[in-house]
Amino acid sequence: MSLVVIGTVAFDAIETPFGKTDKIVGGAATYASLAASYLYSQTKIVGVVGNDFLPQYIKEIENHGINVEGLQVKEGQKSFFWAGKYHNDMNSRDTLVTELNVLADFDPIIPDSYQDCEYLMLGNLTPQIQKTVIQRLRKRPKLIVMDTMNFWMDVAMDDLLETIKLVDVLTINDAEARQLSGEYSLVKAANKILGMGPKYLIIKKGEHGALLFHGDQIFSAPALPLAEVFDPTGAGDTFAGGFIGYLASVGTINFSNMKNAIVFGSALASFCVEKFGTERIKNLQKDEITARVKEFVSLSSFTI
Amino acid sequence: MSLVVIGTVAFDAIETPFGKTDKIVGGAATYASLAASYLYSQTKIVGVVGNDFLPQYIKEIENHGINVEGLQVKEGQKSFFWAGKYHNDMNSRDTLVTELNVLADFDPIIPDSYQDCEYLMLGNLTPQIQKTVIQRLRKRPKLIVMDTMNFWMDVAMDDLLETIKLVDVLTINDAEARQLSGEYSLVKAANKILGMGPKYLIIKKGEHGALLFHGDQIFSAPALPLAEVFDPTGAGDTFAGGFIGYLASVGTINFSNMKNAIVFGSALASFCVEKFGTERIKNLQKDEITARVKEFVSLSSFTI
Repeated sequence: MSLVVIGTVAFDAIETPFGKTDKIVGGAATYASLAASYLYSQTKIVGVVGNDFLPQYIKEIENHGINVEGLQVKEGQKSFFWAGKYHNDMNSRDTLVTELNVLADFDPIIPDSYQDCEYLMLGNLTPQIQKTVIQRLRKRPKLIVMDTMNFWMDVAMDDLLETIKLVDVLTINDAEARQLSGEYSLVKAANKILGMGPKYLIIKKGEHGALLFHGDQIFSAPALPLAEVFDPTGAGDTFAGGFIGYLASVGTINFSNMKNAIVFGSALASFCVEKFGTERIKNLQKDEITARVKEFVSLSSFTI
Repeated sequence: MSLVVIGTVAFDAIETPFGKTDKIVGGAATYASLAASYLYSQTKIVGVVGNDFLPQYIKEIENHGINVEGLQVKEGQKSFFWAGKYHNDMNSRDTLVTELNVLADFDPIIPDSYQDCEYLMLGNLTPQIQKTVIQRLRKRPKLIVMDTMNFWMDVAMDDLLETIKLVDVLTINDAEARQLSGEYSLVKAANKILGMGPKYLIIKKGEHGALLFHGDQIFSAPALPLAEVFDPTGAGDTFAGGFIGYLASVGTINFSNMKNAIVFGSALASFCVEKFGTERIKNLQKDEITARVKEFVSLSSFTI
């Protein structure tokens, strides 16, 4: 039994009002697997990098108990690279550089040792590749969570809808939910999207928290109000990794556990934004996570 | 012992994507006192109207057990009138007409029978008039709640700061909190604003709920996700009225009761937007309110 995370493993160069970085380790699968590793010990990664992704970077991932057998290293090629600059409000950003490199012809390999996958996290990536991973698992996982973004709605809507059909949980942000459904009201948007296949929909609203939709049930999770957001890169991936990591750790899929999973995902994401890149999320203590989750409880609890 | 609500009592003409109205009864004090009246029986209103505000309109307010002795009717003059048009997203609107009329030289009268005021709701109005009402109460109320808006920050910041100094609770929206403090982070904004005098700050975030700040404590209240917002006019005033009405009904001011008060205010506001103007908020049943509050509990509760 394991949790398999697929997504980009990459380099990012980030500029925020607080400073800028050179190429640092990033990628959806990196953030998501690191986050999941704090909650569930059998986490395995699928991805591709070039040999500019030094062994020490892979070692840092492995040191979290993450299985990297499914991480292909392409000799003589370069890793996916993204450079971006955040605006002052930290809610919007400009993409400065996107170099696909090894990602251009990524053909995901699922090692035999990954075929015990019960929990599958499809990190943000071409919907066609996300679908391929589902097809290459001999047994359908107990839970498939899919993250995606507006870019795929613009350039690959048909593929996206095909993949969405196959998953249990879809996580997107509010603007993406509106784009995908053509509805402004998030309640109407959620109803339409739940009709596309997923049994659960999570709408991420950044500093406003997240909404979980399932049938007629809705859960509204708060976000921790932060004095400073240092770097938002990877927060959504970290949320997704924490979310599925929590579910894998409890082993039962129901609305109540989904709610807690959102709180754990939000707590991990709140750490992610405190420093550049993966700096904070790769150096967490379990008691810090427990304390942060307690902050979420106290933040939103009331007794009427 | 009573709850005194001061603010505009007025006519509105509203246009939304769902339709438009002729002149209908509106005004901050109208919405706030109607909302409060469902939770607290000793609600009293201070305001001014022209004699175009027909006796039947006043009667409708009185029928909710609201004392209208402090509502001045100016013969031969016209009531305050506002016309506005909401955009498709319902989050922004254009003001089409603002006629101050009787409001231009409003001098609030506090009847002797209002001097037992323990809870004072300063609805959105000139900060100078809000201050005058505080000064005209012989005994300082146990709790003063002040609502205001960006307009007064633009044209009367000094007066506004003078009045803010005197109140216990300030309610503004997120854009206004940023404008008033000059801080983008709502946590930093709240710290600055709490330094201006109020012990409690409520930041209203519309469809994203509300935040309550008090010292180092923060409470995040959800908003009910709605399939349709028919008319947002008066939602903030209704929230404020429900908030202070709840506190008056329980009689004890502490953080825990403030949290519940926000939930009651949010529940009442969620009714307000279901129909044009005061149509929904003036025709509520107590068991509808109880059921709506229960929806808020189920929306945001989780057990970790």
